[in-house]
Amino acid sequence: MDWSRRNVFGWGYADETVPDAMKRRYAALLTQAFGGIELRERRLPRVEDLALRLPRFALPPELAAFSTDATFDRANHTYGRAWRDVMRAMRGDFSPAPDYVAYPRDEADIAALMRFCADANVALVPFGGGSSVVGGVEPRIGDAYAGAIVCDLCRLDRILRIDAVSHTVCAEAGIYGPDLADGLRPHGLVLRHYPQSFEFSTLGGWIATRAGGHFATLYTHIDEFVQSVRMVTPRGIWETRELPGTGDGPDAGRFVIGSEGIFGVITRATMRVQAIPTFRDGAVVRFDEQDRAVEAVRAIAQSGLNPANCRLISALEAFTMGIGDGARTVLLLGFESADHPQSEKLGRALQIAAANGGANDVAGSGAAEGDPDAGATWKDRFIRAPYVRDWLARCGVITETFETATTWDRHAAFHGAVMNATVSAVMQECGAGFVFWRFTHVYADGPAIYYTVVAPGREDDEIAQWDAIKAAASDAIIANGGPITHHHAVGRDHRRWFETQRNPLFGEVLERVKTTVDPSWVMNPGVLLDRPKS
Amino acid sequence: MDWSRRNVFGWGYADETVPDAMKRRYAALLTQAFGGIELRERRLPRVEDLALRLPRFALPPELAAFSTDATFDRANHTYGRAWRDVMRAMRGDFSPAPDYVAYPRDEADIAALMRFCADANVALVPFGGGSSVVGGVEPRIGDAYAGAIVCDLCRLDRILRIDAVSHTVCAEAGIYGPDLADGLRPHGLVLRHYPQSFEFSTLGGWIATRAGGHFATLYTHIDEFVQSVRMVTPRGIWETRELPGTGDGPDAGRFVIGSEGIFGVITRATMRVQAIPTFRDGAVVRFDEQDRAVEAVRAIAQSGLNPANCRLISALEAFTMGIGDGARTVLLLGFESADHPQSEKLGRALQIAAANGGANDVAGSGAAEGDPDAGATWKDRFIRAPYVRDWLARCGVITETFETATTWDRHAAFHGAVMNATVSAVMQECGAGFVFWRFTHVYADGPAIYYTVVAPGREDDEIAQWDAIKAAASDAIIANGGPITHHHAVGRDHRRWFETQRNPLFGEVLERVKTTVDPSWVMNPGVLLDRPKS
Repeated sequence: MDWSRRNVFGWGYADETVPDAMKRRYAALLTQAFGGIELRERRLPRVEDLALRLPRFALPPELAAFSTDATFDRANHTYGRAWRDVMRAMRGDFSPAPDYVAYPRDEADIAALMRFCADANVALVPFGGGSSVVGGVEPRIGDAYAGAIVCDLCRLDRILRIDAVSHTVCAEAGIYGPDLADGLRPHGLVLRHYPQSFEFSTLGGWIATRAGGHFATLYTHIDEFVQSVRMVTPRGIWETRELPGTGDGPDAGRFVIGSEGIFGVITRATMRVQAIPTFRDGAVVRFDEQDRAVEAVRAIAQSGLNPANCRLISALEAFTMGIGDGARTVLLLGFESADHPQSEKLGRALQIAAANGGANDVAGSGAAEGDPDAGATWKDRFIRAPYVRDWLARCGVITETFETATTWDRHAAFHGAVMNATVSAVMQECGAGFVFWRFTHVYADGPAIYYTVVAPGREDDEIAQWDAIKAAASDAIIANGGPITHHHAVGRDHRRWFETQRNPLFGEVLERVKTTVDPSWVMNPGVLLDRPKS
Repeated sequence: MDWSRRNVFGWGYADETVPDAMKRRYAALLTQAFGGIELRERRLPRVEDLALRLPRFALPPELAAFSTDATFDRANHTYGRAWRDVMRAMRGDFSPAPDYVAYPRDEADIAALMRFCADANVALVPFGGGSSVVGGVEPRIGDAYAGAIVCDLCRLDRILRIDAVSHTVCAEAGIYGPDLADGLRPHGLVLRHYPQSFEFSTLGGWIATRAGGHFATLYTHIDEFVQSVRMVTPRGIWETRELPGTGDGPDAGRFVIGSEGIFGVITRATMRVQAIPTFRDGAVVRFDEQDRAVEAVRAIAQSGLNPANCRLISALEAFTMGIGDGARTVLLLGFESADHPQSEKLGRALQIAAANGGANDVAGSGAAEGDPDAGATWKDRFIRAPYVRDWLARCGVITETFETATTWDRHAAFHGAVMNATVSAVMQECGAGFVFWRFTHVYADGPAIYYTVVAPGREDDEIAQWDAIKAAASDAIIANGGPITHHHAVGRDHRRWFETQRNPLFGEVLERVKTTVDPSWVMNPGVLLDRPKS
């Protein structure tokens, strides 16, 4: 990871740009949709002009040896990359900046950091690629700590072992998506886990946050790919064994997966990989009736066909993506295999879709969605989307997403309630705007739903507007029994809803586990749990 | 469940018998194999002659209202149904008998039992179908407790809701396998989880022990079928929500699954079910070379074909089952679907097998294995096996199994070491005997291996002989990095190996969670954990 190129004020690399033609297209679309509001691109601050608070404590030399208080590093590790993070950065607000950024070279460095933090009451925030959209890496730690160190794992980026017989790879947690893929490719293997953050997120980050990936069915979360995991905690190593399956007590790995840095720092994992797919078949299906499209997807999800891609996209979102007419709901279907042709499966899925009114009008493009191997189309849509989001943010447009899940029997009522609450809030706060939805992942018992809000902000009021919309949507999700997240994680931003939905006894269990492995509560405080008032 | 018919001295119903022809076949086979040792069936004790220790404490009337100290009930709830359990029962040894058997009518009864046990320092042992083979339901509690109550969930046996849209069923935990299947069948649905204990095990028991089921790939453990679960603990309810998927923190359900009754009593679960399969295709494949058979199964497991059945059976075991010639390794392959034909998948799997020297000589029978819907073949082999085991036990034959897992790259060395240790121990202890192996479940990264020992016992010395064999096998498993169980659970019998293989910090976490939800440590003491010396 070339940190020098990273963008302090938004996604990815500072030198990546959005093509002018794309800007013009979006500007025309939104100006019209927002009733004539003209998009005006604001100027970014310069890194050299940022005045960060001075570090509140000194580092001992052995930690200073792999740490920095340079403005560029601290600013770049102040936020994740949610829209509200980018908005704050663009305004030059870096008030949550850590006092130091540490780049540990090995587990011993991490353990030394933990000892120092426990002794000095300093918060330690694990940092993979920094792509959190839920405040997971933001050192927003309140007044109870003497300061904060962000622990960037980018130096722990080695592939330690590739087992082409068992189809596994053991790698250090700080490895970025593309580097892991590059290391596996010569062996004919691939992890095939592509969150949208793929280029700027790490193996450890995926595991810590239960990231959602490429596969729309079966292997939706990173969880299923984890064969074993190793985590350094303030109390020592929590490690699981390299086994294909076991039934010996509660799963020790599942408590590390999704722990979001509150128990320790994931340093290593052995992952299940697979042969690079060579057979691919996909299609785009369009439905006049949204309800029947949902029925089709339910039937496909319950068919056992297990498509790799099965994204149902609302008519409005498909239109803005340039793949729909704005009236029909669009289903992207894709099948893939390294072993055998997929045309028969696709054919059966299309039969199911047709029985629910789906018309298959373009063949072969479904598999491209979310698939970096498929080239230019994906790069434009998938990799560039966050850059477009940032440009829109600079133009004062609120562009943010949230996601949840529900069961099929409750879907219509659930989705209706969430849409109503969100659209009402958008109209009240912004007077105009869109709410798109899509299914990103589907299960036999229900879909994961992903909502996108695009609305005009009032200058300097955008964050408060979004926060009100987000609160209305989140309240509706909780009131209707959905989870506050399906794969974006909890972080700091979702904690208050997580607390209302969490079983109270399990909340107590989480606290006790936390106290067991991190007695001083210095690991990523504020994420998932708040330190109990003592 | 008709408890009055249950067999105090062995598996299942007391009035079930093993056909004489089958007895004669096995007797001839074993007499020859064991070098002329003649099988002599010993007489069973009578229930009315059993003299159980008097209850060591009195029950308050509100608990006595749903509890009993009748000898039949206490004797029937003294052991699981491992071979060594059956041997002890046959000898009339019921020394671990509980003081009472409680049949709670609802969660309030369970909570009342927990309060009493915490106050009176009495162990409470949750009991589903009682089919544990690892001492999971045996009140072997040492001297630290005032006594023991077994809590039989058989009255909590209702199906609460069937959701044919989302393909789920919510049922009480005490429901037995066949009753759940009967309730689902009219809706065209099935859980399709068939442990060998299916007829005499319960939904709650499957979840508590991470049972292994019908599917050889993908859905090997009950874990994947659990949508939500509800557990009564001494500190209140631990419940997860009915969601198809979520990413909000560590999975609260995965800590209930596999908890083996040490945190509380599972009272209810919502399970993912599926349409009853209508398309089935299967085959039997034979391999001259065992190594190439393993290679074939590895390739099939990594192909993404996901057969429902993929059991590789050692030549010797296949011969004794009547499906092999004693020289060739046998692979049972089966595919099933409620949606689409499976012949193409089977065809591809057979190609893979053929490329590794596998000859497909019988079509259509693979799917029958482990499948109660397939009729007589299954019933004879699968349901009757434990009855045959009991008859052999009465004849003094050691017949027991153990199971583990490993990765493909380590398989040859691992399996060699385990076989060597086991065969050596069998020869040393018994002077003769068989050790069979099979793969019961296969993953892309490795197989679950299931070993069966059949050896002649010396009268009144059989248990010590088996314990020595089991210890040698278990030590070899641990020394070679395998788990002490893949799906039989830990219970009391595996605890000492579980302790050596468990990450120490995770062991501490387990203890802390235990103390949080069961502060008096009365829930199933001795399983998974031992009460810390205070």
